[in-house]
Amino acid sequence: MISVAVAGASGYAGGEVLRLLLGHPEVRIGALTGGSNAGTPLGELQPHLVPLADRVLEPTTAETLAGHDVVFLGLPHGQSGPIAQQLGDDVLVIDCGADFRLTDASTWERFYGGDHAGSWPYGLPELADQRAALTGAKRVAVPGCYPTVSTLALAPAVAAGLVDPAALVVVAASGTSGAGKAAKPHLLGSETMGNASAYGVGGVHRHSPEIVQNLSLLTDETIRVSFTPMLVPMPRGILATASAPLVDASTDAARAREVYAAAYADEPFVHLLPEGQWPTTKAVVGSNAVHLQVTVDPDSGRLVAVAVVDNLAKGTAGAAVQCMNIALGLPEATGLTTVGLAP
Amino acid sequence: MISVAVAGASGYAGGEVLRLLLGHPEVRIGALTGGSNAGTPLGELQPHLVPLADRVLEPTTAETLAGHDVVFLGLPHGQSGPIAQQLGDDVLVIDCGADFRLTDASTWERFYGGDHAGSWPYGLPELADQRAALTGAKRVAVPGCYPTVSTLALAPAVAAGLVDPAALVVVAASGTSGAGKAAKPHLLGSETMGNASAYGVGGVHRHSPEIVQNLSLLTDETIRVSFTPMLVPMPRGILATASAPLVDASTDAARAREVYAAAYADEPFVHLLPEGQWPTTKAVVGSNAVHLQVTVDPDSGRLVAVAVVDNLAKGTAGAAVQCMNIALGLPEATGLTTVGLAP
Amino acid sequence: MISVAVAGASGYAGGEVLRLLLGHPEVRIGALTGGSNAGTPLGELQPHLVPLADRVLEPTTAETLAGHDVVFLGLPHGQSGPIAQQLGDDVLVIDCGADFRLTDASTWERFYGGDHAGSWPYGLPELADQRAALTGAKRVAVPGCYPTVSTLALAPAVAAGLVDPAALVVVAASGTSGAGKAAKPHLLGSETMGNASAYGVGGVHRHSPEIVQNLSLLTDETIRVSFTPMLVPMPRGILATASAPLVDASTDAARAREVYAAAYADEPFVHLLPEGQWPTTKAVVGSNAVHLQVTVDPDSGRLVAVAVVDNLAKGTAGAAVQCMNIALGLPEATGLTTVGLAP
Amino acid sequence: MISVAVAGASGYAGGEVLRLLLGHPEVRIGALTGGSNAGTPLGELQPHLVPLADRVLEPTTAETLAGHDVVFLGLPHGQSGPIAQQLGDDVLVIDCGADFRLTDASTWERFYGGDHAGSWPYGLPELADQRAALTGAKRVAVPGCYPTVSTLALAPAVAAGLVDPAALVVVAASGTSGAGKAAKPHLLGSETMGNASAYGVGGVHRHSPEIVQNLSLLTDETIRVSFTPMLVPMPRGILATASAPLVDASTDAARAREVYAAAYADEPFVHLLPEGQWPTTKAVVGSNAVHLQVTVDPDSGRLVAVAVVDNLAKGTAGAAVQCMNIALGLPEATGLTTVGLAP
Repeated sequence: MISVAVAGASGYAGGEVLRLLLGHPEVRIGALTGGSNAGTPLGELQPHLVPLADRVLEPTTAETLAGHDVVFLGLPHGQSGPIAQQLGDDVLVIDCGADFRLTDASTWERFYGGDHAGSWPYGLPELADQRAALTGAKRVAVPGCYPTVSTLALAPAVAAGLVDPAALVVVAASGTSGAGKAAKPHLLGSETMGNASAYGVGGVHRHSPEIVQNLSLLTDETIRVSFTPMLVPMPRGILATASAPLVDASTDAARAREVYAAAYADEPFVHLLPEGQWPTTKAVVGSNAVHLQVTVDPDSGRLVAVAVVDNLAKGTAGAAVQCMNIALGLPEATGLTTVGLAP
Repeated sequence: MISVAVAGASGYAGGEVLRLLLGHPEVRIGALTGGSNAGTPLGELQPHLVPLADRVLEPTTAETLAGHDVVFLGLPHGQSGPIAQQLGDDVLVIDCGADFRLTDASTWERFYGGDHAGSWPYGLPELADQRAALTGAKRVAVPGCYPTVSTLALAPAVAAGLVDPAALVVVAASGTSGAGKAAKPHLLGSETMGNASAYGVGGVHRHSPEIVQNLSLLTDETIRVSFTPMLVPMPRGILATASAPLVDASTDAARAREVYAAAYADEPFVHLLPEGQWPTTKAVVGSNAVHLQVTVDPDSGRLVAVAVVDNLAKGTAGAAVQCMNIALGLPEATGLTTVGLAP
Repeated sequence: MISVAVAGASGYAGGEVLRLLLGHPEVRIGALTGGSNAGTPLGELQPHLVPLADRVLEPTTAETLAGHDVVFLGLPHGQSGPIAQQLGDDVLVIDCGADFRLTDASTWERFYGGDHAGSWPYGLPELADQRAALTGAKRVAVPGCYPTVSTLALAPAVAAGLVDPAALVVVAASGTSGAGKAAKPHLLGSETMGNASAYGVGGVHRHSPEIVQNLSLLTDETIRVSFTPMLVPMPRGILATASAPLVDASTDAARAREVYAAAYADEPFVHLLPEGQWPTTKAVVGSNAVHLQVTVDPDSGRLVAVAVVDNLAKGTAGAAVQCMNIALGLPEATGLTTVGLAP
Repeated sequence: MISVAVAGASGYAGGEVLRLLLGHPEVRIGALTGGSNAGTPLGELQPHLVPLADRVLEPTTAETLAGHDVVFLGLPHGQSGPIAQQLGDDVLVIDCGADFRLTDASTWERFYGGDHAGSWPYGLPELADQRAALTGAKRVAVPGCYPTVSTLALAPAVAAGLVDPAALVVVAASGTSGAGKAAKPHLLGSETMGNASAYGVGGVHRHSPEIVQNLSLLTDETIRVSFTPMLVPMPRGILATASAPLVDASTDAARAREVYAAAYADEPFVHLLPEGQWPTTKAVVGSNAVHLQVTVDPDSGRLVAVAVVDNLAKGTAGAAVQCMNIALGLPEATGLTTVGLAP
C-alpha cells in the first residue's frame, strides 16, 4: 500500500483529495494536517468523510508529513515551497496550490508578488508532452482549475493552427468552491445564491498567465488571451466558453470536430460530446471527466468551444490523483471515474 | 458476473441505480429500457453516465428485461406489478416504485387507488427483522425516501418505549429530485430555486401510511404520525425532523443517545453523529449513509431526532443495491460508500 | 417629511429597512451608520441601493444618530440598549434586534446571557392587542423572524381553544439571510447551496421563548412548544410548519379555516390562501405579506398550519416600517406591499 | 387613470408586467388573459400577486383585450401579430415577444422561420434615437433580454470607435426565467440547480441578429458579434461579458470609463459603477437598473465591459413599462425603481 499524507485536510482541495483517496485501492491514508484547525477531529470539518471522522488534524509541519510515500499539499499559495523543501527528494510531493505552476519568474512576481519558488512538472497530462514529464516525477504542480478547462478547450484548435492564437477569448463560469473555504462576506450563501458576478476582469486574474503558458507549448506564435472569470450560484463546476477567429474562413464545424476528436481520441478523461450536444457542469460533478464540444460560427468568423470540469475534481484533486497514478506507474484511472453525480 | 437490467433508465431512480452499478465490481450492465425515451442513446438523457453514453434505450417489456439475473424497476407506480409477473421467479426483481410496499390492501386503495398488487420483502434492512427477510429474497420493494429517513429517525425511540407512539410528528424537507423527472411547471428551476413549500399536508401524502406500517413493527401500541413534507431548493437530500412526547419526563439527552447508539451500533450505513453535531444533507449526497442525531427538549417534554439521507441513494437506488447485495449473499456494502460528495 | 436614521446600514436588516424606506413617500433618509464599515460608501456594501450609493457610513454613536424623528437599529444583540438610552424620549426608536423583546428577565438571561435591558412594545400588530400598544409608541421591539411566522401560524388555533397549547410543534425552514452578514464558514455559499440542516434543536434556539411569550397572551393555559429551525438553500424566506393535537376530534378542516379566516379578516398583510392552496416562500419575497393555510389530519388527530414570510421583510424590516407607520399615525401600509417578487 | 390589459398574464413576462403595474400610480388593471389557463384564478398561477388573486383569466382574443388604453402582449412568438392587427390604431400595444423586433425580413425568416410580421419602434430608449421614436408611439417592440444587456455593454465603445466592431464577443449568463414557464425536462429545478450550461452556441441563438441590428445603428462599419448564452442556476438576472479588440492600443481603462460615463450620463436607469467595482446580478433584481463597468486589458489588447440587468424587469417587463411611460408622455421612471432586491 502507498502511504499518503494530506496537508490542508480541512480545506476544499484537501477534502476532495481525501474523498478520492478513500476510493483508491492502493492507498493508505496517513497524516492529516491543518492550520488553525489542528487538534480538531476531521468529522467536524468534513462531515462527508465518515470513515475519517475520528481522525484528528495535526499541525502542518515537515515532521507530521514525514514518513509517507506521497504528500498532497492543499495550502494557500506561498506555503508549499518551504514545506516541500523539507520533504525528501524520494517523496512524491503533489502541490494543489499555485507555487510551482509558472515557469517565468517575472510573471510570477507580477501576478502573485514575492519570490518565485521555481517550477515543477505540470500536472496536465493531456497537454503536449506533459504525461511523459510526469512519469516517475517526484514533484508535481497541479494546474489551476480555470487553466485546465481553458487549455483543454482551446488546445486542439491552437495546435492545429485553426485559429488566430493572438485573439483568444475565454469566459468561464465557476462554482463558489473555487474561491476556497475561508469565510469572506461576498462568498456567503446569502450573497452568492441567485447571483452571478464577474471578477478579475481585464486580464488581472492569476490564472491568465497560466493559460498563456500552456497554449504557448503548442505553437511558435504569440498567445494572447482575454480571460474573464465569473462566479455563478453553484458549489462545484466550471464551464468555459472559448472562442477565436478562424484563420481560414472555410473551416467548418465538421472540420473543427475532426481536429478535436483526433486530439483527444486516446485521452481517458476527455469526452467530446456527440454533435449537437453541449456540455453541462452537472454531468461531470464528482468525476475526473472533461466534457467538451466545438463548433464554428460563420457569421462572426470564429471557432467556439465549450468545456466543463468539476473544479475540485479534474480541476484540482482529481488531477492530483491522476498525476500520482502516472508518477507512480499505476494505471492512470485508478481510483478515478468518468461518471458524474447528477441530478 | 451478475447480469443486471434496469427498467426506467432515463429517470432519476434508474439513473442513480446505473451510477452505482457502474462502480459495483460484480455487475455487468445489460438491458436498459425506457418508456417514451426508447430508441434514444442514454448519453442524451443521462450525460453523467459516460461509459453508457452510446447505449440505446429499449422499450420496457418483459422480453427486453428477460435473461438477466437481476432486474431493477424504476417505473411509475402501477407499472411494476404487470412487468414483475412476467419475469421468472428465479430472477431477482427490485422495485424502486411503490407497488409492493404496503401490506394492507385497503390502505393501498385509499392512498394510491386501484387494486393492491401485493407486498414484497421490504428493503429497509435496518428495520426490525427485515435484513433476514431480504436474504435470499427474489423480490424486493424498495422503501419510499421519506419513510426511510423518518423510520430510522424514530425507530429506536419507539422500540425502546421512550416516546408516546401515538403522537409522533415528522416534518421533512426534500430536494426536488424526489418529485421525479416528469416536467411540471411547479418543479421548474425558476419556481423551485429560492423557494420552500409544504405539500401533501394533513396526512394525505402517500408515504404517511408507510411510516406507520414500519414503526408498527416495533411496538404493540398504535402508531399515529403527523407527517408533513416540504420541497426545498436543492436537487438531492432529505432532512427529517422528528419529535414525540417523552413517556418519562426524566429521560434526558444522554439516555436518548445511548438508545440510538445501541440500536445502530452494527449498522454499516447509519452514523450517529458525535454529541452536539447535527446532520446536514450535503454530507450524505451520493452516499448510502444515514446521519442522525437525537436530543431531548425538557421545556416541551419531547424527544427530537434529526436524520438525513440522499433521497436518490439510500432513499432509493442505494437501498436497492444494498438489498441486491443482501439478497444475493454479497457483502452488504459492495459498490456502496458512506462517503458523501461535498461541498 | 419624517427624518430617519439607520444604524447598522451595512447589514441585512439595515439594508432592507433602507430598501423599503426608499419607496416610502413620507420619509427622508438621514444618517446611515456602520460598525467596522464606517467610512465606506454604502454602494460598496449594498450595491442594490443605487440612490444611496454615494452615502458614506458614519460610526454608530448617539451623536451621529441624533436629530432624527425616527431611528432604526439593526445591531447585534446587546448593543441596542446603550444607544437607545442616549436617544431622547421624543425620538421613535425601532429596534430590529432582540434586546427588548422578552418581558421576563430570567428567560432573557437563560437564552441570551447578560443583563436584561427591559422590554418595549412588541412589534407584531396582528397579535392580541399589540396594535393598540404600538399606536403612539416611542419605542418598538421588532419581533424575531421565527416568532413572527410561528405565532401567526398558531395564534388563531390557540386563541380559539382548538388545540392543546401544551403540545405545540413548529418546524421552520429559513433562508440564510436570517443568520446575518457576518462571514462564518458554515454560511458560505459552497456550504449552504444544495444543503439543508437543522440547528438549535431541542428547544435551545433563542426564538423559542419568544414564541411561548406570544402565544401565552392568547390563553390562560400553559404554552409548551417544540421549536426546530432549519437552514435551507435560499437567501430569503421562512416556511413554518406548525401542528398541535386537536382538543375535540370532531374539529374538521372547514372549522379550522373558519377560525383562521375570522382571526385575520381585517389584517392587511395576512392572507389566508384559498382552500387547497399551500404557501410558498417565493410568493412573499420582498413583500410584507404573510401567506397561510390550515387543515386537520384526522389520522394523527392534529391541526396543521403552514405560514410563510420573508424573514427580512415582514420578518424584520417590513414589520419595522409597519410599526413606524402605526406609531406615527400614518396609514399602516404606507411604503409596504403585499406583492412579492417571483419567480 | 390609464386602463391596461395584459395578455399572457400567467407567464413570467405577463406576471412581471403586472407586478410593476400594481405599483404604478396612473394605471388601472383591466382584462387579464391566458391561453390554456383561461378560466383559472390568477392567484393559483401567480400567488405573489395577492391583490389580483381573485381575478379570473379570460381567453386571449381581440374582444377580451378591447376597450383598454394600453395592451401588453406576453405571448409566444408568432402570436402577437394577429392579435395586434385587431386592436385599434389608437391603442398602445406593447409586445414583449419577438415578432416586431427585427427590421430585416430575411433575417427574421432565417432565425424564426415563417413570415415576417414587420417591425415596430424598438423599446430600448437608451439606444441611438430610440427614445424619440418611442415618444407618442402606438406600437412598441420590447427588446430581447440578451440584446438589451449586450447592446448597452458595447454601445459606447462601438459608437466612439474604440473597438473593432467586426470582432465583438459576448458571453452572457442568464437565469432560468428567461426560458419561460413552459415545463421542459432540462429546465426542472433538479436539472438546473448546481448546473451551468451553454446553449445556442455558434451564432444560432435568435438574439444574435438583434444585437447586430442594434449596434449597426451606431457605426457605418460592419458589426460581427460572437454571442454565446449560458444558463446558470438562478431564477432571474443576466450578466453579459463583452469584449472587443482595441482600435488604438493606447486606449486605457480611464479613457474607456470616460466614454461610458459620458454615454450614459443622462440615463436614469444605467449606472456605471465606481472604478474597481464590478456588477452583480443580484443588485438589480426586481429593478429597472442596468449596472455596468468597463476596463482595458493591455495584454490581450481588448476592451472588456460587463453589464447586468434583471432579464424579466429591464430585460422585459420593466422596459415595457418604461416604454409605456415614454409613449404616453408620463415621467419615464413612473412605477419603476433603480433599487434592487438583495440579498
